[in-house]
Amino acid sequence: MRTATPILLTPGPLTTSNRTRQAMMVDWGSWDERFNQLTASVCEQLLAIIQGAERHHCVPLQGSGTFAVEAAIGTLVPRNGKVLVLINGAYGKRLAKICDVLGRAFSTFETLEDAPTAAADVDRLLHADAAITHVALIHCETSTGILNPLAQIAEVVKRHGKRLIIDAMSSFGALPIDAREVPFDALIAASGKCLEGVPGMGFVFVEKTALAASRGNCHSLAMDLFDQHHYMAQTGQWRFTPPTHVVAALHEALLQYHEEGGLSARYQRYATNCRTLLDGMAELHLRSFLPAAIQAPIIVTFHAPKDPRYQFTEFYERVKAKGFLLYPGKLTQVETFRVGCIGQVDAAGMQAAVNAIAQVLQDMDVLDI
Amino acid sequence: MRTATPILLTPGPLTTSNRTRQAMMVDWGSWDERFNQLTASVCEQLLAIIQGAERHHCVPLQGSGTFAVEAAIGTLVPRNGKVLVLINGAYGKRLAKICDVLGRAFSTFETLEDAPTAAADVDRLLHADAAITHVALIHCETSTGILNPLAQIAEVVKRHGKRLIIDAMSSFGALPIDAREVPFDALIAASGKCLEGVPGMGFVFVEKTALAASRGNCHSLAMDLFDQHHYMAQTGQWRFTPPTHVVAALHEALLQYHEEGGLSARYQRYATNCRTLLDGMAELHLRSFLPAAIQAPIIVTFHAPKDPRYQFTEFYERVKAKGFLLYPGKLTQVETFRVGCIGQVDAAGMQAAVNAIAQVLQDMDVLDI
Repeated sequence: MRTATPILLTPGPLTTSNRTRQAMMVDWGSWDERFNQLTASVCEQLLAIIQGAERHHCVPLQGSGTFAVEAAIGTLVPRNGKVLVLINGAYGKRLAKICDVLGRAFSTFETLEDAPTAAADVDRLLHADAAITHVALIHCETSTGILNPLAQIAEVVKRHGKRLIIDAMSSFGALPIDAREVPFDALIAASGKCLEGVPGMGFVFVEKTALAASRGNCHSLAMDLFDQHHYMAQTGQWRFTPPTHVVAALHEALLQYHEEGGLSARYQRYATNCRTLLDGMAELHLRSFLPAAIQAPIIVTFHAPKDPRYQFTEFYERVKAKGFLLYPGKLTQVETFRVGCIGQVDAAGMQAAVNAIAQVLQDMDVLDI
Repeated sequence: MRTATPILLTPGPLTTSNRTRQAMMVDWGSWDERFNQLTASVCEQLLAIIQGAERHHCVPLQGSGTFAVEAAIGTLVPRNGKVLVLINGAYGKRLAKICDVLGRAFSTFETLEDAPTAAADVDRLLHADAAITHVALIHCETSTGILNPLAQIAEVVKRHGKRLIIDAMSSFGALPIDAREVPFDALIAASGKCLEGVPGMGFVFVEKTALAASRGNCHSLAMDLFDQHHYMAQTGQWRFTPPTHVVAALHEALLQYHEEGGLSARYQRYATNCRTLLDGMAELHLRSFLPAAIQAPIIVTFHAPKDPRYQFTEFYERVKAKGFLLYPGKLTQVETFRVGCIGQVDAAGMQAAVNAIAQVLQDMDVLDI
């Protein structure tokens, strides 16, 4: 695979294809019909990935994924609503922080960073607190790479007649989610993750009746998904200046996504990447933080070597010099580092990264792994 | 000038240089030190344009310019503050709308779309209402291209001990603003305007003590400029995923800005563009909406021809086929169209646009201008 060096083994921004970046070599008029068609095509292709055209709108939003998450909560949770936030990492905590800043009532249910949220717990919590209107969760928690059991949780939430908001930032496009089978009010992701676009826009799949009921509810003008959708539906245009080059890159990335074979092919490549990484690192005696059963093939957290000669910054710089960007750990209790499996990289690239890591550990005299 | 066709004669997104777009051919790690340096360099260069390093911080923000405007109001205007919004076009109205959605008290002062706000009126209004804490205005109103007398208004606002928020979206980088002489709490602009970067990020110059006093005031997590600045000051990183390619493009655009000769050279080029446009259009008997004295060399509004054979959509498509994208009018009372003078285009390009317009009017048999 042809890429600009170094290869980013990070959870996004990640390595994109030359073709995707090449799509940014044109300046687009944000008012022009050709750009409107580009946007419409992006939304249509995104909806198709989750079989969502019937029940959901795709609402793109300027900014990072977190902007889209805040927009979903601010638009969809009524001012007198209450959110049950399921937490097992930094991004779950961020959901709670958003509710807090927006003044939406919320309660949290936190499990250990290596413990997926159990649907039975959600069931129990919904029984215990009738005030809860919405449940919010992270599908794949990028802090560790843990996968939460979305389908089971969604079923419980639906059984209780509550609404579900899913942050699928790092899973969308690689892990299957079928909107006809998994009921949700909002599912949020972004351009620069498993779709292998560049960062700069998020998007929210919003259930049509939930969006229709949300007029005037949002705390923000720019983040109001009702207004954003309404204006786009009327005019074909973005309400405020779109990140035109980012949209063009995402469009090109989506074409390649389909050419590769869509979600199942993308999943297979990442799964192979992940297995290559885990096998290779195991040979170096580097232990992954999560058991395989709950490890999503998106990003892997490894325990840092015990050897006192290991020091992350030096390790990072040396691996970078060999052409690979790693990612620091995000756990407070255990020293770790992370390696992404996503982006325009294949098993050969992952093996090359493992080889680089092996060489660096040897060069640093890190023996006690 | 080498550009991708067509040339965008729009107020942003606009035509960028090949070199600026080429800077997007690299994928950057958002956590990497090299990217942090890029961000720091962008902020430093931006501050230098207004001589703002001493009194202001530059806080970049993901999203379009409107996101940055909302962020400035939400972060800086206390919950019990009151904003006097000065309006003579669509963007002034948007400021009022933001105050409304954010629940900040506000009053408006609206003049005609061809009448700059007079400093004497601001003086009178501030005398009349002691509850006002902040004044918000548009420097160059993109609806028409009108220039408001920023320096005089800023002086009045300061004399009353009030705070000023300036939307300088379409003027920053081309029209001189010196932060040592013009007192303000916030001045907002974006990447894809007179700096000739690509769209996808805004930035706010915030007065240091005003920012320090704003902790916990913002209505939004993602738009909290205090948090955004605080995190960046601590870590060198953006708080949430940055639009890496957009930042890299802006960095490259800023290098070219300085190579061209900085603000005075950029102003000169745009002023020459504007004069070439006005002179050329006058020869075609197309009348500009604004008198020359209040016309900023950013975007020009022209009265639509009276001839019934003129129809904007056809006119637009025909001019586009000749390589130039025009911009629709935004006035409610008068039929107009707009032509931008900004972007990677020079006087020869503007003359070519005029020639294209002349040919199209002739082809359309539009005789009664």
